[in-house]
Amino acid sequence: MTVGAEMHALVERMYPLCRSITGNGVRRTLEIVGEYLPLWTHEVPTGTQVLDWTVPREWNIAGAHITGPDGARVVDFADSNLHVVSYSVPVSATMSLAELREHLHTLPEQPSLIPYRTSYYAPDWGFCLAHETLDALPEGQYTVHIDSTVEDGHLTYAEYVVPGAVTDEVIVSCHVCHPSLANDNLAGIAVATFLARELAERSPYYTYRFLFVPGTIGSITWLARNAERINRIKHGLVLACAGDSGPLTYKRSRRGDAGIDRVMRYVLEESGREHSIVDFSPYGYDERQFCSPGFNLGVGCLTRTPYAAYPEYHTSADNPGFVSPDALADTLATCREAFAVLDRNRRYVNTSPYGEPQLGRRGLYDSLGGRSDAKQAQLALLWVLNLSDGDHTLLDVAERSGLPFDAVAAAAQALLGAGLLKE
Amino acid sequence: MTVGAEMHALVERMYPLCRSITGNGVRRTLEIVGEYLPLWTHEVPTGTQVLDWTVPREWNIAGAHITGPDGARVVDFADSNLHVVSYSVPVSATMSLAELREHLHTLPEQPSLIPYRTSYYAPDWGFCLAHETLDALPEGQYTVHIDSTVEDGHLTYAEYVVPGAVTDEVIVSCHVCHPSLANDNLAGIAVATFLARELAERSPYYTYRFLFVPGTIGSITWLARNAERINRIKHGLVLACAGDSGPLTYKRSRRGDAGIDRVMRYVLEESGREHSIVDFSPYGYDERQFCSPGFNLGVGCLTRTPYAAYPEYHTSADNPGFVSPDALADTLATCREAFAVLDRNRRYVNTSPYGEPQLGRRGLYDSLGGRSDAKQAQLALLWVLNLSDGDHTLLDVAERSGLPFDAVAAAAQALLGAGLLKE
Amino acid sequence: MTVGAEMHALVERMYPLCRSITGNGVRRTLEIVGEYLPLWTHEVPTGTQVLDWTVPREWNIAGAHITGPDGARVVDFADSNLHVVSYSVPVSATMSLAELREHLHTLPEQPSLIPYRTSYYAPDWGFCLAHETLDALPEGQYTVHIDSTVEDGHLTYAEYVVPGAVTDEVIVSCHVCHPSLANDNLAGIAVATFLARELAERSPYYTYRFLFVPGTIGSITWLARNAERINRIKHGLVLACAGDSGPLTYKRSRRGDAGIDRVMRYVLEESGREHSIVDFSPYGYDERQFCSPGFNLGVGCLTRTPYAAYPEYHTSADNPGFVSPDALADTLATCREAFAVLDRNRRYVNTSPYGEPQLGRRGLYDSLGGRSDAKQAQLALLWVLNLSDGDHTLLDVAERSGLPFDAVAAAAQALLGAGLLKE
Repeated sequence: MTVGAEMHALVERMYPLCRSITGNGVRRTLEIVGEYLPLWTHEVPTGTQVLDWTVPREWNIAGAHITGPDGARVVDFADSNLHVVSYSVPVSATMSLAELREHLHTLPEQPSLIPYRTSYYAPDWGFCLAHETLDALPEGQYTVHIDSTVEDGHLTYAEYVVPGAVTDEVIVSCHVCHPSLANDNLAGIAVATFLARELAERSPYYTYRFLFVPGTIGSITWLARNAERINRIKHGLVLACAGDSGPLTYKRSRRGDAGIDRVMRYVLEESGREHSIVDFSPYGYDERQFCSPGFNLGVGCLTRTPYAAYPEYHTSADNPGFVSPDALADTLATCREAFAVLDRNRRYVNTSPYGEPQLGRRGLYDSLGGRSDAKQAQLALLWVLNLSDGDHTLLDVAERSGLPFDAVAAAAQALLGAGLLKE
Repeated sequence: MTVGAEMHALVERMYPLCRSITGNGVRRTLEIVGEYLPLWTHEVPTGTQVLDWTVPREWNIAGAHITGPDGARVVDFADSNLHVVSYSVPVSATMSLAELREHLHTLPEQPSLIPYRTSYYAPDWGFCLAHETLDALPEGQYTVHIDSTVEDGHLTYAEYVVPGAVTDEVIVSCHVCHPSLANDNLAGIAVATFLARELAERSPYYTYRFLFVPGTIGSITWLARNAERINRIKHGLVLACAGDSGPLTYKRSRRGDAGIDRVMRYVLEESGREHSIVDFSPYGYDERQFCSPGFNLGVGCLTRTPYAAYPEYHTSADNPGFVSPDALADTLATCREAFAVLDRNRRYVNTSPYGEPQLGRRGLYDSLGGRSDAKQAQLALLWVLNLSDGDHTLLDVAERSGLPFDAVAAAAQALLGAGLLKE
Repeated sequence: MTVGAEMHALVERMYPLCRSITGNGVRRTLEIVGEYLPLWTHEVPTGTQVLDWTVPREWNIAGAHITGPDGARVVDFADSNLHVVSYSVPVSATMSLAELREHLHTLPEQPSLIPYRTSYYAPDWGFCLAHETLDALPEGQYTVHIDSTVEDGHLTYAEYVVPGAVTDEVIVSCHVCHPSLANDNLAGIAVATFLARELAERSPYYTYRFLFVPGTIGSITWLARNAERINRIKHGLVLACAGDSGPLTYKRSRRGDAGIDRVMRYVLEESGREHSIVDFSPYGYDERQFCSPGFNLGVGCLTRTPYAAYPEYHTSADNPGFVSPDALADTLATCREAFAVLDRNRRYVNTSPYGEPQLGRRGLYDSLGGRSDAKQAQLALLWVLNLSDGDHTLLDVAERSGLPFDAVAAAAQALLGAGLLKE
């Protein structure tokens, strides 16, 4: 089974669960991820102050339906958990179609699809349904029933840490709050899970921290509870919409030229993959929080088709058939390649900066001079020595020299070994 | 009567007066402007040291003519005040045509036009006339008569101030020293006058100071007498050639990226007007003085066809027919639009910069999430919050977000009201 | 005899000598250059530590040949000094063709040319020959003889200094270590020699120091012995490949925007010469050493066809016929023009920076104002005054104003004379 197929199987397994920003759907999702990774799961009580926000009451739902004038169920939560507006308060009532319509949400321009709607912070209830279903409803009395609870409880999120050689961190964050929506964001969860597993098999330089958090309130909660860690976060990536068939899109951090921005651009361009790079904007996913002006972290967002830019977005058409094993595997490979650069992309200082050091007596240079076919490895040595002034990163060297990053990184290793570079 | 027609009427009324850098023509011009605005007029005595310069003696002229061999007046100041070189010393003499020619100025390539010439600082006299008139002069003896005075007196200029919420100032300057030349600069005087009237009806943030000054020596005199005010000048605009039919031209300040430079570019581009933006150069109008390296103020220059770039420039063809009500009105509207942006273009600081503040509980956010059609007003709130770090202006926000400045400014007002921004 | 022909004659005269990084060939070359310039020649003993390097033993050679199975000389150093790998240790031996081949270097793709090879730091011996000669060698026993010495001695280099008004220096460096190769670098030596002669006839502002040094080890030796002088080096130029028929190529310093980089770009563009400007890279000629990160001097490299970019490079085809008097003269003229700008390209401070100074009373301005044909000289005065704030150089003024550098420099002289500028 390819890694793409494994990730797709994980998406399919998580798909039926009814997630929201709190509740048992999130807990069950994290238990499944926990089968792949030893997650550290946190439960934060309702009412906890987190930055400018307060952890809300916990929402859970057992079932919901609308019964028509003829007694038949015309909408049933059992068919799709998108049918109920997330955080709907419990209700049991009979009303006319006109009254009911105030609580119904459809997509008139996509009449066969069920929309996804939430009302986290304004107590309300509602149903989402296909517009063509709505059109077919006869006049008459309808009974509605939502068997939900909105009660003091907890907000649930999880972390997984791959320890590195240094305590400086790279964070990878994905939102786990959406119900039956495959690309947004079970695909992101799957890619993060498999990326974490791969990194754990290596001994990375950075410490990599994976966050599985409800959108907005979850990342805000994590940030509020990790104030002392913020300064250690050097880079980060939000993963979302990671499995559709569109080309990759990297959205830059607010800084625009952070290390992760440089690395993602380099890797996407060098790889030859079709891709787009777009500027930061303060909407989308949890990069909004990491890139708020007080934090201003170097955190970008990698998607395939971005936030809200595909017609299946936030509808019942964002199902497991909308994501593919190949796309999931390609997103994972891109992350793998980017982190392979990021993890080696450091600044060094030439310890012999006055004139070129004599490479020949250190066995680092072809002794027979005068040949015009200078080799790439030798060029890389010269470039790394020349630009290692404490200001330039190895990626700067690769970009300025036109040499592959791998050749530059290998030259740096050789020079470190010869004592000609120091950190 | 449209505002354009009103401005054109003002141009026509000022046109016959014989202005120079001193004298009664300037005084009378400022009296006329004083009917529109309560001007504060200054009289600075001859001999006053102003920066590197000295206020010159005052020049006045009652009449002047050349009489030909047959006793007929071939050139008469009464026909056009351009006929006499400005600051001509008094003369009464008879001489041959050859001797007279040394004092005659024509435009051989524009043979029907009278040129405009001055000799402010080198005592001299002369006449300007159409080249075709010169060509028709027979040999013989000519008598010349210039009934002028060059005597100790005063340099006259005026100011008008629209007080603002702060004492930081925006200056608007126009030169009032040219005789019968309509576009250069009666048009600029008219636009400045009506712009000042409009601003006085509002309560602007900045204090707006309008300067009606003779070119070069006038602005130098003002600068010399207002040394303590210079640091309060945050922006400025020189208005000239404001009424011809050409497209608008904005000439940047010496800084090139001053606030006024950014605002003018934004407004000209957003408005869809045909326009040019050109770099600063140390010739043209009084921006030369405001942008001298010691002051280096953020003062640009707005014209239609710029300085010396139209064939009617500094000739008798620059008459009221050369300027139009529509062009005057368009220049005024451009200034109005630019100052509307400039006056609101400030830097704010997000008071809740760690993560996004919860807009919902402050009534600033649509409570029903999950909809893809995020509204412009909500985007503007997010952009202003994200970029309000004390570095970015609202214009920076508008340009980076692509949102209209008005939407951004409205968002800033809402956030100030909610305590989420501070100055 | 044109200066181009004189330089070409110098190239032809130096061509037969067998130069290397040490030895009598270098001494004899410097003696010839010494007939044109009073050189200061240095002899640095073998074993001297210079930066990360050690001055090597001195190499000299009296003769070398290979005798074939039939007793005929198949390769003879007397025919071309390229035939022996530079720094070949002495050898006298008989061996099979197969054994001999290990010590033979050819260019299979340029079968009629002798390559140039060196083995400075790895004791070895070898012959270079045309590939078609190699192909024609019959099987059999060969005797090889190299009558060379590699012994303690000296490294030889020379300097020539043109004293300037200030002790700040411009260095011009050329390598003198290549044997019979005309473009690389007898052409560079010839241009440097004639450039030095010309400069000595003027009284330049900067002190100009010409370095005639063996490549790499020579510039490193000079840098090691002149540590206290480094801070005085403001600009520099490495001259190489100065005589081929290709267009000029300027390679920027590591800084990329050093004074010499700006000047060379300006002069090459203004002159209308076909040319290329390329970024710094840490291979090529001695700019590698001057631009190592510890020194990071503003030293660029001027060539015609650059390092290793022509098929004759480092082969017997790089002979005096490959360089032309016209190309040598054009390179010299380019240097002359560039140094004429560089030598005057200073920053001044306007002593009357508040408003424009009154140029008229200082005789610097046309007194009759109002004319549209402002003259270039007057524009230059205004531009120099406006930008002389201690930050802008005269070249900045020329580039921003679009005025010729000569006009700008003349304006600066006039303003210095009037006390309106100071250094």
